[in-house]
Amino acid sequence: MRWNLPPGQMPEAWFNVVPQLPEPLQPDLHPGTREPVGPDDLSPLFPMALIGQEVTSEPWVDIPGEVIDVLRLWRPTPLVRAQRLERALGTPARIYYKDESVSPAGSHKPNTAVPQAFYNKQAGITRLATETGAGQWGSALAFACALFGLECKVYMVRASYNQKPYRRVMMEVWGGSVVPSPVDDPDSPGSLGSAISDAVRDAVSREDTHYSLGSVLNHVLLHQTVIGLEAKEQLASAGERLPDIVIGSCGGGSNLGGISLPFVPDAGVDLLAVEPSSCPTLTEGTFRYDFADVAKMTPLLPMYTLGHEFMPPSIHAGGLRYHGDAPIISDLVKAGRMRAVAYPQGKVFEAAVQFARTQGTIPAPETAHAIRAVMDEALAAKQAGEEKVILFSYSGHGLLDLGAYDDFLHGRLDRD
Amino acid sequence: MRWNLPPGQMPEAWFNVVPQLPEPLQPDLHPGTREPVGPDDLSPLFPMALIGQEVTSEPWVDIPGEVIDVLRLWRPTPLVRAQRLERALGTPARIYYKDESVSPAGSHKPNTAVPQAFYNKQAGITRLATETGAGQWGSALAFACALFGLECKVYMVRASYNQKPYRRVMMEVWGGSVVPSPVDDPDSPGSLGSAISDAVRDAVSREDTHYSLGSVLNHVLLHQTVIGLEAKEQLASAGERLPDIVIGSCGGGSNLGGISLPFVPDAGVDLLAVEPSSCPTLTEGTFRYDFADVAKMTPLLPMYTLGHEFMPPSIHAGGLRYHGDAPIISDLVKAGRMRAVAYPQGKVFEAAVQFARTQGTIPAPETAHAIRAVMDEALAAKQAGEEKVILFSYSGHGLLDLGAYDDFLHGRLDRD
Repeated sequence: MRWNLPPGQMPEAWFNVVPQLPEPLQPDLHPGTREPVGPDDLSPLFPMALIGQEVTSEPWVDIPGEVIDVLRLWRPTPLVRAQRLERALGTPARIYYKDESVSPAGSHKPNTAVPQAFYNKQAGITRLATETGAGQWGSALAFACALFGLECKVYMVRASYNQKPYRRVMMEVWGGSVVPSPVDDPDSPGSLGSAISDAVRDAVSREDTHYSLGSVLNHVLLHQTVIGLEAKEQLASAGERLPDIVIGSCGGGSNLGGISLPFVPDAGVDLLAVEPSSCPTLTEGTFRYDFADVAKMTPLLPMYTLGHEFMPPSIHAGGLRYHGDAPIISDLVKAGRMRAVAYPQGKVFEAAVQFARTQGTIPAPETAHAIRAVMDEALAAKQAGEEKVILFSYSGHGLLDLGAYDDFLHGRLDRD
Repeated sequence: MRWNLPPGQMPEAWFNVVPQLPEPLQPDLHPGTREPVGPDDLSPLFPMALIGQEVTSEPWVDIPGEVIDVLRLWRPTPLVRAQRLERALGTPARIYYKDESVSPAGSHKPNTAVPQAFYNKQAGITRLATETGAGQWGSALAFACALFGLECKVYMVRASYNQKPYRRVMMEVWGGSVVPSPVDDPDSPGSLGSAISDAVRDAVSREDTHYSLGSVLNHVLLHQTVIGLEAKEQLASAGERLPDIVIGSCGGGSNLGGISLPFVPDAGVDLLAVEPSSCPTLTEGTFRYDFADVAKMTPLLPMYTLGHEFMPPSIHAGGLRYHGDAPIISDLVKAGRMRAVAYPQGKVFEAAVQFARTQGTIPAPETAHAIRAVMDEALAAKQAGEEKVILFSYSGHGLLDLGAYDDFLHGRLDRD
């Protein structure tokens, strides 16, 4: 069963969780002076509108009409009740998911790519530079740039560039230009941290170019709150009150923030972050100031981190291979308002295949992390005989990740 | 702008065009006796429910509840107005498309895979055999079999099997078993006609197994009419009356039939079939009895054909590489109720990229044939200053066809 909000009923404002965080957010620090960064420090990279959103304490931020015009190509996204999965698990829990895979780029990423492209265009910028790991973010930004007539340059982690030619082609269909990163070391497989350095270097060296980041920052999580805001309304149409638990996979934190932040003020709602056990930032990292990139060009962020030089193993959920977490997510976990759990990828792909064979659709490996946790929560509810309401973000489809499924089905996947 | 029918408002019956065809449909003939085939001839291949649907003259056929239960995982599909494309073309035409790419398998094919799996299961069959060219049909049937607990064996045209490993993996995720065809000649690249022979041979040799076909037959087109039926209602919600023209790409004819057959009784509605100029069955074939497969195991069908031994060039729109057309479509074209046009693939991919850069989504190469014709009709409307209403079927996404886009963008695609 699906609940569609009527077109024209997507949210008109983003929800800003910052004034409602359990502990005040600590400021980002300048990498040289270690003083709090100000607008002037960020203006070579971002337009003023986004810098303002990064620090605003307004509870709501209006979504510009031109952004709504694009988002409504696929929003509101459906809320789906996973009844076939419920029956397969024999659980009394009711499982709902917000289907973000229906966007043109196939994930939640365009929710922020579109406003970022819009505000940059409005500020007279004609070209955006960014990094991408598995390719979800790069393709979202290439899509958004195509619709606003901006050039898009994507630095793609070399290992992915070589292993995932389809993601590159997708960006090129939308007119993006894609190069493998690190650009100065053709022998390195690269990492998200080093690709960020390449993109920032590009942006600061050209007047016409800004930088665009697909996760971690406050304004990115702000833009993603359309997911949770719509879900809240749709759950009400489905006859539910608040969910008992909200679950999202967490790399940098944008997907998780999108589904969960609108529920932060609802004290009874359990919030759960799911990460890979091979890159366990929230479950095994430490909370401290750290750089967002390898070359230490970015501000220092207050976050859970494994260290900016952490080189994650080459797991298939490329979108979850980041050494840190969004400061907002870190704040919530540190204060105990959000829990975190980690899974090895073998158990994650088992969940993914069971989902595909019951609900029909093939999830992204990142999304399958959330699905693994959903199944375990649903089975716990069965043991306890509780009619829990579980909400999760189906953050993307796995149609460009079928190589990983191939490895899993034929016993070639490292299960850790 | 999108129009969603509320969930729970998908059609409850399929529309049978046969009693309303301009000329009575000629019977299929037994390949040996050349007499009209009867139910006994077909019963080794199909369950009686489908054989009945193949020959029924009832105007409507009820959709079983268990079929509706699965179809509603993604149906009703959205009707979308392509306003960005309209603006890019500067046309006064209003362009609407029915988005069939939202199904789990990414195309319209599950609309018939699901009822075929259901009726076979109901008849006590535990295993289905089929063929697939590019992989759209095979993945749809593997998906449907997963949901009904049937085994699925897919004979995949060897050239596609080697070039499109992701399609094979997709079928395997749903539990399907996939082998390259022809099975008895590992050096042959194969064709749809020879893969049909392999699948039919499998089905007739096992008691537990039936055969399943993804296009051409009357019952397949019947199942696809949900597309056009929903579109008609959604156009009304959008404030339109009947469309001036309905456009669909045509391989075997199931997608085209799905969007267009419900409009056959509406005399003023222009119906347009679009095919590749390298496999021009309707525009250059002849109407006569011919076999559906290379090995001449199937009944003889009254249809436009290029000859059952026609070996189509290896164009990227694999779903359109079939030597014949559905008898229902052939009847409509022969009687002048439907027009046909053919395009070379260079012009088709130009349209596909323009669509992706305006509307955002990347269409399947098959779908892009329809889009090419839509653009040309919209430009003709601009020249004539006419406010035409154009409806087409967005039959599938191109996310597993990005290799073809890569060839096109880098000048490696044969433009013919």
